[in-house]
Amino acid sequence: MRYVKINGFGVEIPKSAVKFDESTRYRVENETHIDMLVASAEKALVDANMAIDDIDCIVASCVVPVQPIPCTASLVHERIAKHTNIPAFDINSTCTSFVTAIDTISYMIEGNRYKNVLIVSGDISSKALNKNQKESFELFGDGCVAIVLSKDEEKKSGIIYSEIKTYSEYAHSTEIIGGGTHLLPYDYTQENSEKYKFNMEGIKILRASAKILNTYIEDLETNANITLDDIDMFVPHQASSALKFIMKKIKVPTEKYIDIVDDYGNMVSASIPFAFYKGIELGKISRGDTVVLVGTAAGLTVNTLVLKY
Amino acid sequence: MRYVKINGFGVEIPKSAVKFDESTRYRVENETHIDMLVASAEKALVDANMAIDDIDCIVASCVVPVQPIPCTASLVHERIAKHTNIPAFDINSTCTSFVTAIDTISYMIEGNRYKNVLIVSGDISSKALNKNQKESFELFGDGCVAIVLSKDEEKKSGIIYSEIKTYSEYAHSTEIIGGGTHLLPYDYTQENSEKYKFNMEGIKILRASAKILNTYIEDLETNANITLDDIDMFVPHQASSALKFIMKKIKVPTEKYIDIVDDYGNMVSASIPFAFYKGIELGKISRGDTVVLVGTAAGLTVNTLVLKY
Repeated sequence: MRYVKINGFGVEIPKSAVKFDESTRYRVENETHIDMLVASAEKALVDANMAIDDIDCIVASCVVPVQPIPCTASLVHERIAKHTNIPAFDINSTCTSFVTAIDTISYMIEGNRYKNVLIVSGDISSKALNKNQKESFELFGDGCVAIVLSKDEEKKSGIIYSEIKTYSEYAHSTEIIGGGTHLLPYDYTQENSEKYKFNMEGIKILRASAKILNTYIEDLETNANITLDDIDMFVPHQASSALKFIMKKIKVPTEKYIDIVDDYGNMVSASIPFAFYKGIELGKISRGDTVVLVGTAAGLTVNTLVLKY
Repeated sequence: MRYVKINGFGVEIPKSAVKFDESTRYRVENETHIDMLVASAEKALVDANMAIDDIDCIVASCVVPVQPIPCTASLVHERIAKHTNIPAFDINSTCTSFVTAIDTISYMIEGNRYKNVLIVSGDISSKALNKNQKESFELFGDGCVAIVLSKDEEKKSGIIYSEIKTYSEYAHSTEIIGGGTHLLPYDYTQENSEKYKFNMEGIKILRASAKILNTYIEDLETNANITLDDIDMFVPHQASSALKFIMKKIKVPTEKYIDIVDDYGNMVSASIPFAFYKGIELGKISRGDTVVLVGTAAGLTVNTLVLKY
């Protein structure tokens, strides 16, 4: 076990919400991405009872950056850590970036490089949705979540097992084509504007996920050397309303996973940490519980991280 | 020492070059970013005498992504690792992304998570330059470099010391404002087009670097517990023609660092690994040498990594 502990959560969601039938999605109006990232980071520090000087690394694990240059972590640094020399860099595996970040950083903490790392995730995907694609247009919500990940000197909390798997045959099933080097910002026109918007082949991704996750629990039990009974709660990426279908397929009972898709939608990189936070708030996750963070991200990438909270 | 070894290099630069007085900059014409990243990755595998099945993680450490979604590593994966489930994710600290990637990943190798990691860096910054800013317009070159970073079972090669420091008071001294969430691709107009281009306050960055690096060698000697004499070669980021000035200021003699600014310019995230590759090719770096990778990146972030090659 890599002895790391989530010491504090900070959550920032937009004030306004839109309703689609029974579903609520919080979406930015005047809020900016960087303001929300910073607010979540500040709240995480308060929750962890720490000052910025206690932090020895800042990691931003978002999907779309605030600016192409510099990295998003530097822009968060500018607002909360100016005139320090705390290192700042980004880690990105799209929707599961938060999980990849704590997975990766846990090795640096275990290796005594860092003691307290501020990890900030979140996106304002509502800005990139395509009104003509109802399925995705009505799915996404905005939000940012930050945590402080600390070395656990008491050796009570930690990461028991983690894995990442990328299945690139589905690399283009969830994508934004335009805005990087493949289709430059300057090539934007009214005619090709949809290429700069989010595109999701929902059915294809669902079928791929069902296929890839077919023996998920059996594999997890073998690889992590635990049983389903040992696991107190699953915190899945709130990818879509098909979450119930997928969890049923892999035989995780309803009371054993967090499902907030109706109330918040898919919050992209903030989705898993926000569902984790909600699980704690709702009394479904307590200190010492064995929690599995799991999610499929554009890539297609599947992250699993088993931790003792 | 974290026992990791650079097992192979793969380099891909554009065929065409432009000349500015005595300076040469290779810049893409028909080549694409993803094609060049893939070509460098394939060459690195050949150089390491490995097949893709030997690789257990793919990391892209570029500045600007190929697409906003999915991450660049997934798109490289699609071309060289399709139908495998090798994990793929991105690490970004702008120009020093390569150094941050090997620094970070070395802890995962040391922790026995991965054995052979393919790290792919590179940018085609020529696409984002502003003709009206002569200083940066004539500075940058395109290119991609990949390496295989492996566990060194023989415990001969490894990372002796590494550090990252971010000074965000200079966060906006090197930037591209437009293209992320701060200024969306869809807000691009002819009038605000310069905001989507690279902008560099050259003199300010140079002064900041000189100030920050003032006691660089003394600090490095203390922190890494080595002396300047122990270091065989410095591989600095080829930030600009002021490299000579900075290296003189920190008292590193000319014969002890790689300087290819005139011949290749600032190759952004490929700059440090390309200078490393050239150092080997020119016979200036040999197996067993103590090499210092050092660079300032937009952020402003300063990376240092001392390795036994």
